[in-house]
Amino acid sequence: MQERSDANGLISDEKPVWIVMGSESDLKVMSEAAKILESFDVGYTISIASAHRCTEYVLETTAAAAGRGVKIIIAGAGLAAHLPGVIAAATILPVIGVPLQSGALAGQDALYSIVQMPPGIPVATVGIGAAQNAGLLALRVLAVSDAELQRKMEAYRGQIRDNTLARNQKLSEIGYKKYLEGM
Amino acid sequence: MQERSDANGLISDEKPVWIVMGSESDLKVMSEAAKILESFDVGYTISIASAHRCTEYVLETTAAAAGRGVKIIIAGAGLAAHLPGVIAAATILPVIGVPLQSGALAGQDALYSIVQMPPGIPVATVGIGAAQNAGLLALRVLAVSDAELQRKMEAYRGQIRDNTLARNQKLSEIGYKKYLEGM
Amino acid sequence: MQERSDANGLISDEKPVWIVMGSESDLKVMSEAAKILESFDVGYTISIASAHRCTEYVLETTAAAAGRGVKIIIAGAGLAAHLPGVIAAATILPVIGVPLQSGALAGQDALYSIVQMPPGIPVATVGIGAAQNAGLLALRVLAVSDAELQRKMEAYRGQIRDNTLARNQKLSEIGYKKYLEGM
Amino acid sequence: MQERSDANGLISDEKPVWIVMGSESDLKVMSEAAKILESFDVGYTISIASAHRCTEYVLETTAAAAGRGVKIIIAGAGLAAHLPGVIAAATILPVIGVPLQSGALAGQDALYSIVQMPPGIPVATVGIGAAQNAGLLALRVLAVSDAELQRKMEAYRGQIRDNTLARNQKLSEIGYKKYLEGM
Amino acid sequence: MQERSDANGLISDEKPVWIVMGSESDLKVMSEAAKILESFDVGYTISIASAHRCTEYVLETTAAAAGRGVKIIIAGAGLAAHLPGVIAAATILPVIGVPLQSGALAGQDALYSIVQMPPGIPVATVGIGAAQNAGLLALRVLAVSDAELQRKMEAYRGQIRDNTLARNQKLSEIGYKKYLEGM
Amino acid sequence: MQERSDANGLISDEKPVWIVMGSESDLKVMSEAAKILESFDVGYTISIASAHRCTEYVLETTAAAAGRGVKIIIAGAGLAAHLPGVIAAATILPVIGVPLQSGALAGQDALYSIVQMPPGIPVATVGIGAAQNAGLLALRVLAVSDAELQRKMEAYRGQIRDNTLARNQKLSEIGYKKYLEGM
Amino acid sequence: MQERSDANGLISDEKPVWIVMGSESDLKVMSEAAKILESFDVGYTISIASAHRCTEYVLETTAAAAGRGVKIIIAGAGLAAHLPGVIAAATILPVIGVPLQSGALAGQDALYSIVQMPPGIPVATVGIGAAQNAGLLALRVLAVSDAELQRKMEAYRGQIRDNTLARNQKLSEIGYKKYLEGM
Amino acid sequence: MQERSDANGLISDEKPVWIVMGSESDLKVMSEAAKILESFDVGYTISIASAHRCTEYVLETTAAAAGRGVKIIIAGAGLAAHLPGVIAAATILPVIGVPLQSGALAGQDALYSIVQMPPGIPVATVGIGAAQNAGLLALRVLAVSDAELQRKMEAYRGQIRDNTLARNQKLSEIGYKKYLEGM
Repeated sequence: MQERSDANGLISDEKPVWIVMGSESDLKVMSEAAKILESFDVGYTISIASAHRCTEYVLETTAAAAGRGVKIIIAGAGLAAHLPGVIAAATILPVIGVPLQSGALAGQDALYSIVQMPPGIPVATVGIGAAQNAGLLALRVLAVSDAELQRKMEAYRGQIRDNTLARNQKLSEIGYKKYLEGM
Repeated sequence: MQERSDANGLISDEKPVWIVMGSESDLKVMSEAAKILESFDVGYTISIASAHRCTEYVLETTAAAAGRGVKIIIAGAGLAAHLPGVIAAATILPVIGVPLQSGALAGQDALYSIVQMPPGIPVATVGIGAAQNAGLLALRVLAVSDAELQRKMEAYRGQIRDNTLARNQKLSEIGYKKYLEGM
Repeated sequence: MQERSDANGLISDEKPVWIVMGSESDLKVMSEAAKILESFDVGYTISIASAHRCTEYVLETTAAAAGRGVKIIIAGAGLAAHLPGVIAAATILPVIGVPLQSGALAGQDALYSIVQMPPGIPVATVGIGAAQNAGLLALRVLAVSDAELQRKMEAYRGQIRDNTLARNQKLSEIGYKKYLEGM
Repeated sequence: MQERSDANGLISDEKPVWIVMGSESDLKVMSEAAKILESFDVGYTISIASAHRCTEYVLETTAAAAGRGVKIIIAGAGLAAHLPGVIAAATILPVIGVPLQSGALAGQDALYSIVQMPPGIPVATVGIGAAQNAGLLALRVLAVSDAELQRKMEAYRGQIRDNTLARNQKLSEIGYKKYLEGM
Repeated sequence: MQERSDANGLISDEKPVWIVMGSESDLKVMSEAAKILESFDVGYTISIASAHRCTEYVLETTAAAAGRGVKIIIAGAGLAAHLPGVIAAATILPVIGVPLQSGALAGQDALYSIVQMPPGIPVATVGIGAAQNAGLLALRVLAVSDAELQRKMEAYRGQIRDNTLARNQKLSEIGYKKYLEGM
Repeated sequence: MQERSDANGLISDEKPVWIVMGSESDLKVMSEAAKILESFDVGYTISIASAHRCTEYVLETTAAAAGRGVKIIIAGAGLAAHLPGVIAAATILPVIGVPLQSGALAGQDALYSIVQMPPGIPVATVGIGAAQNAGLLALRVLAVSDAELQRKMEAYRGQIRDNTLARNQKLSEIGYKKYLEGM
Repeated sequence: MQERSDANGLISDEKPVWIVMGSESDLKVMSEAAKILESFDVGYTISIASAHRCTEYVLETTAAAAGRGVKIIIAGAGLAAHLPGVIAAATILPVIGVPLQSGALAGQDALYSIVQMPPGIPVATVGIGAAQNAGLLALRVLAVSDAELQRKMEAYRGQIRDNTLARNQKLSEIGYKKYLEGM
Repeated sequence: MQERSDANGLISDEKPVWIVMGSESDLKVMSEAAKILESFDVGYTISIASAHRCTEYVLETTAAAAGRGVKIIIAGAGLAAHLPGVIAAATILPVIGVPLQSGALAGQDALYSIVQMPPGIPVATVGIGAAQNAGLLALRVLAVSDAELQRKMEAYRGQIRDNTLARNQKLSEIGYKKYLEGM
């Protein structure tokens, strides 16, 4: 397998989001980012690519991403978690970093490694394991220049509000004992 | 002073970035975000507004921001640091949170309060005190739909690379002892 | 569902404690606050209401709470845990915050977000997951102006002392091996 | 000096707040609690009394406090910081704990020692070094049954809001450079 | 039940070690201290007694301990873990503190609360959950003036050395694969 | 059993790596170091030897190690984890330390104890539980003067790159849903 | 200089306490242990001896200590702080460990390295930098079999109580403003 | 300035150590590594090169390093501190990582980012700011196949032992008071 030959072949044209993670063990959590994008009908490419195990692939794919129509990148990693920062250094696209819970330090290592980037190269960090929020943050960024997406985001905002209020209403009606039985 | 009467009067029309912080003691650090925006000729409004001391002002100004032409918000806060999250809950604009170093816990409290947002409401968190990086992240977001800004960002990226390489060249030429004397 | 129309309709009149939490997943732990209030025959209303997903509902219900007879509020939240602070900013009633264990940081994020409030807006924070203690703290506050409740609190204090002394007596009589077998 | 002879002689009758700290080195920070009470014309007694160096004095004074008219206790301590918890165990009055920054762990030890009280004996914990907020929390508790104090608290709330809005107005008018020069 | 009437009745005369813990849930871990004392034929009394739930019992029993022949005290507690410090303040006997793992902070709260005692009142702290080591430390202290116990301690030291060397020998002979199968 | 008599008898001649751990409970994790060495056909001796329970054995075996052909030492330990540092003090061979996850602090205690060595005596620390990486680091050191091993290490590097790229290819072909089903 | 020739020559006969520290930079803090011993007329020897830089000296001096009349050892160290544990492994005398604040981690590394000793080898740990408390703990241990020292310790206990009560009395008389001026 | 044209031109041929750091602000601390190498007459090249600001330069120089005679690399970085890991991914040479103290988290972020590398790519991590120890670790690695260097390392080991013993002797002779005066 030639690393250089088709570095960015797997990024599909005109899909505005690239979701990438350092290991296949991250896939379950990171698929939450994909699911929220799907629910908004926003295209994405999803990849496994380690900053350390295939650095050149990561750098070349990142460098080519904007040309392929990528507008924002979501990168998840655990432990030393260099992937989001290495990607952010190779592009001027906004990069969202998702620290993943893995190993003895429960994601605090990944959080520090992702959020504490040096001056000049920011990563937009979300909470530990918060892949869904990474997807929503990508949508907020895309919506800046997409009025249709703005409308969908407003509707989503109303929906999560209504869901919470409906739970509150139900709790008020049936009391906490019945509510807990039903959970 | 009537809080409601002119809630968003201070947000200038057609300035795409709103920089807001919880306290005047945050101004020195947060002005780094303003400076980097200035250097890219990107307009901004800068405000002091606490999530706790003037909640309604924050919510109303945030709600009105998109209508006034704001495209992205940078919010800095220390201690419990609710400001970025409260703003993110009141808009669908992307919100960048800057945890600020203040008090006994050196900003770790602010980092957790800003980055660990619940599902549904993300904040794009940068490093503790990293206001310049917050500005650069805002520029990356704005550049998604601004080819001119993309060019400037690429030039900036080349410039910080060249600065580093020039320092390396100098160190190579004069050695670490003379380099340290000259610092 | 209109958020504004009946913001505080679910707070029952003349129940002195309002227990509120950010998510239905908090209900099991937070119901310990309800149970201890029940055991002292003190009325309460219990709600699910997120500082981020239904901010206006929270603010309006909080603002109306005192007028409905609420004297003290218990607010539990996990992760960034802004709910107690946002409520404390919207009322002059005393607010008790309960940091909840949730996600990778085991409640330390919630503890910092709740206890490190800025000058001017205090939250009375109890231990991580300590909803029963939140209820007892509410009872101490109510007892300040309620002699009958003072007597009940003193009796409760004697009872937990006697329970401990009885366990000690039993341990002294049967030894640790039999005691452990019986647990 | 007889410890038992006049254990609570120093608590002045009919002053509703007792401010107590573990060491004279805590006095500077803890005096912020006194100052905020003074500004609301609420009486207090202020003491130095260590949970470890004069345990009996602490227990006897605490036990006698309610009878002398004390309604709420503010206890500040650093390091192992047992004082608030030991006091809370000796009374049913509400006890506010102030963790103080002291020694190598910067108050995190005191925070844990104060907030993580066992089931049955709560301490209302405020932020590290947040003695002013402890005073404000005491005022919120006293205001539960004091309509005049409620009015003052509402006025104070408006005042800190207006101060923040005024700073915002000034920043808007003169810009951050002049604002920083004037600080 | 009268707390004061027979405060120290449960401490058996002429047993040099008093093992005390804050809650019956600590008994399983703390019984390791008892077991190691038993294996050295050193007498002990074991108690459940909370610094907060039965403070007076703790103080009176502690004050009486030396008169009953207690020479050293082992106190275990979790969470805010004031018990060892409160006991150390009530006696001049050496007090060994055992931080116990309990709740969200995994014993780090108890460690800080026990080890960070203020000047004047030391607690000899062992590792989190290290009740056996607490027992061995008590034996070291007792052995200072007990030549027979010194001999036993030296023998024990040789025995744990030989056990380790025997494991090493076995590993050398059968290899790690068989060793792991046999565990 | 005589500790001194054959202190280093168990180190096999001409095996360049000595893997040593403080307790048999560390064997499962530490065997990962052995496995990676086996896969590169590099000889090793594996031992259980505690810095505290058999200090002299550790010091004598370490002092003799270089003479027996040992070129690098891998030492794993949990809790206070003194073993790597004590060994590093007794030799000039490079020592790799592996902090092991054990007890309440999840290996953070072992990490600090191993990595924070004083000036003069370094330990090459790898991640918590990262015994395989310790083995790979030993191989990197041995490869400095072994061209054949360099070739194998380059091949290994290519192999882990190709494995990652193959997973990426597969994810691209079947999508995340089928990929997750197959895991 | 021959390390082995006079390993324990510097321990003075019949001085019951050996104070030892890892570096001369620890001397200022550790001298607080010496001072408190002096004030009780208890003899001590004070040494600088690193667990890593002169391991054999430490082990031989420790092994010889009991024979020279040492009854208890106080060992202070910063960073990885192996000294107290290494000493505790080489004797059955009680060893008191003092974690010292040094370097980036402010003594938390030393605290973990000292307190988290493995089963079998306890170290009696005091607070970070708490050398005076280490001295007082040594005195408590020596007092177990020294009635005269018991009396002195009781007197000291009364004295620190009276000092605290006197400060309280003074604060009561002159108020916090004058008290602060006089500090 | 062309980044690619002379990527590794600054690495001097046949100097076995490459010292590289992420920023000129790291130079003062990292020069300690250079100084210790100088004292052993071991050649080195010293560079400033950021993993994020000049990624390609770092990767190309690293890839070329072995061919230029580099045998071991010392990489220092603060904050997110990706430099050591990125270099370790681009070579099979052993890489020593030095976490540097910088910003609010005092180097704990850098420690986690450097030590917690994923399986397959180890970094030999030393203590926070421990550049001298990094140099000594490099010397230990080089000494594996250099008998002359082994002799020098043994002499150095004896020298730091003798320095410590001499300080101990002096302390024994003049006492701590005079010793402290002379510091």
